[in-house]
Amino acid sequence: MARIAVDAMGGDFAPQAVVRGAESACREKIVEQIILTGNEDLIKPLIKEPKGIEIVHAPVSVEMHETPSGALRKKRDSSMNRGFELLKSGAVQAVVTAGNSGAALAFAIFTLGRIGMVDRPAIATIHPNIKGGITVLMDAGGNVDCKPAHLIQFAIMGDAFVRSVFGIKSPRIGLLSNGQEETKGNELTREVHTMMKSIDVNYIGYVEGTDLHNGCTDVVVCDGFVGNVALKISEGIAESLLSFFKESVEKSITKRIGYFFMKDAFEELRKKVDYSEHGGAPLLGVDGICIICHGKSDEKAIKNAIRLARNFIDKNLNESIKETMISYFQS
Amino acid sequence: MARIAVDAMGGDFAPQAVVRGAESACREKIVEQIILTGNEDLIKPLIKEPKGIEIVHAPVSVEMHETPSGALRKKRDSSMNRGFELLKSGAVQAVVTAGNSGAALAFAIFTLGRIGMVDRPAIATIHPNIKGGITVLMDAGGNVDCKPAHLIQFAIMGDAFVRSVFGIKSPRIGLLSNGQEETKGNELTREVHTMMKSIDVNYIGYVEGTDLHNGCTDVVVCDGFVGNVALKISEGIAESLLSFFKESVEKSITKRIGYFFMKDAFEELRKKVDYSEHGGAPLLGVDGICIICHGKSDEKAIKNAIRLARNFIDKNLNESIKETMISYFQS
Repeated sequence: MARIAVDAMGGDFAPQAVVRGAESACREKIVEQIILTGNEDLIKPLIKEPKGIEIVHAPVSVEMHETPSGALRKKRDSSMNRGFELLKSGAVQAVVTAGNSGAALAFAIFTLGRIGMVDRPAIATIHPNIKGGITVLMDAGGNVDCKPAHLIQFAIMGDAFVRSVFGIKSPRIGLLSNGQEETKGNELTREVHTMMKSIDVNYIGYVEGTDLHNGCTDVVVCDGFVGNVALKISEGIAESLLSFFKESVEKSITKRIGYFFMKDAFEELRKKVDYSEHGGAPLLGVDGICIICHGKSDEKAIKNAIRLARNFIDKNLNESIKETMISYFQS
Repeated sequence: MARIAVDAMGGDFAPQAVVRGAESACREKIVEQIILTGNEDLIKPLIKEPKGIEIVHAPVSVEMHETPSGALRKKRDSSMNRGFELLKSGAVQAVVTAGNSGAALAFAIFTLGRIGMVDRPAIATIHPNIKGGITVLMDAGGNVDCKPAHLIQFAIMGDAFVRSVFGIKSPRIGLLSNGQEETKGNELTREVHTMMKSIDVNYIGYVEGTDLHNGCTDVVVCDGFVGNVALKISEGIAESLLSFFKESVEKSITKRIGYFFMKDAFEELRKKVDYSEHGGAPLLGVDGICIICHGKSDEKAIKNAIRLARNFIDKNLNESIKETMISYFQS
């Protein structure tokens, strides 16, 4: 039986969207038990389908603008940290939150602890590529100002993640750079590039921005500053293109006819680029399964994040990462 | 009368595509005189419409895989550097090259020299945004491992560029970061963020990846490593989306009907994301107008790059940047 804690107060549309998403996940039997953490007085009246849903009260919430260190000092009693405490105690097997992602990273490290040999846990976002597969970007925003050893750890965790969850036997690991040639890169990537060749992953060398979506690599490794810029440009362009078509269609009757016939293609594309379809991104390197969702998560995004968490529980993700890290650093 | 030097040997489709592009530019009266630099034996037989075209022989070419320092040592007699020498001597008013962009930056600095007060010339790419305007990204790849002062110079040059070429009176300058909050950024951006507030530009603070295409800012400032990743992700996603629609359409008759009615919208979009429509990107901070084109430039891209160069000559871009730099650093 899978039990998952969901931060009912996290995200722009909380607690409504979170409660609805949790109810959907139970109704669709994605998970047997959900524990909503947060202010009971606010959450309880919203629940329409109580089957499988439990509330664990937390008096405060982490706000979106709070600094991670500030939240860590003042918000130990928050809905967010309550989830991590439940995971630490074994009451649940995963946590889902759409709250302040910096604070989530801080509380995950503080309450769950890091997996041995991991200095910096990282956010791994999952991107559909044009070959019909997925490409994982990490770190997508947890860690700015990384040292070479951190990127090596991201590569090893990314390798374990893709192997255990997507069943790819020897994932291709690329290092994000400003060109594929050996002479490219900055101080950080040049050092990592040399180190990568000596570790036991299928390192394919430098990759470029274009390679995040063309299916040439399974994992794209970078520091969290670059990763976050990359992630948000991806989101932004896809949204811009769809809004461009929408405007076009509104202006012209013939285009509206065309749209009618192509609706499936647009819908499929919208799904591909829609954050809510992926649900969220795992935080890898903390000792427990934790899914970080977009702040704008709606009911569907929350439900799909719960589905992702369930998948990771079934695939025993945390143990895979632990075993991989141990085998790399003890050999 | 405008005279522009075009590197006939630069780019994946040189010299054919370059010669055709130069001929188109003359035929369409974009420019009165073009000097093609390169191997005369190879170029001459390709010319079908000699009106307005002149050849200046250069015995060697810079290859795409050469390092900038290697090219600088061994290829002073190259088609690329010949263009810069012509510009330096006053024989032409601008240079266009689709060759090795690192080498172009090196030769531009070596032969033309930098504008006073500029430590690092930068590549400024021009992106259409959803508001129907443009957003300039700089540096898009010239300089990895920047210091805070370099980014300040990029901001000032970007400000002058947008004012003089696009007529925007008080361009909004954003600093690319991993979030808009003051607490975001890495070591480099945090320092630049503080410095930006004390210079006389319309600094709007941190911007994110999404802001490159949503029209919220006129200039996006970043180091060349991050800028190059951003640029290539933009290119890659747009291509991926168009190829996604193409596949969709090929598979289904109803979608093909839909496509027929929406063809204009697709064509318009293709133009927006197609590199060849923009032509190229100016290298700002060297003492002369220099347009760097994509290595994959075809005839149309070369022609449009020549059009861009002509526009910059007419707008007196180089003098604007010089004056702006002097006024900032002497006040």
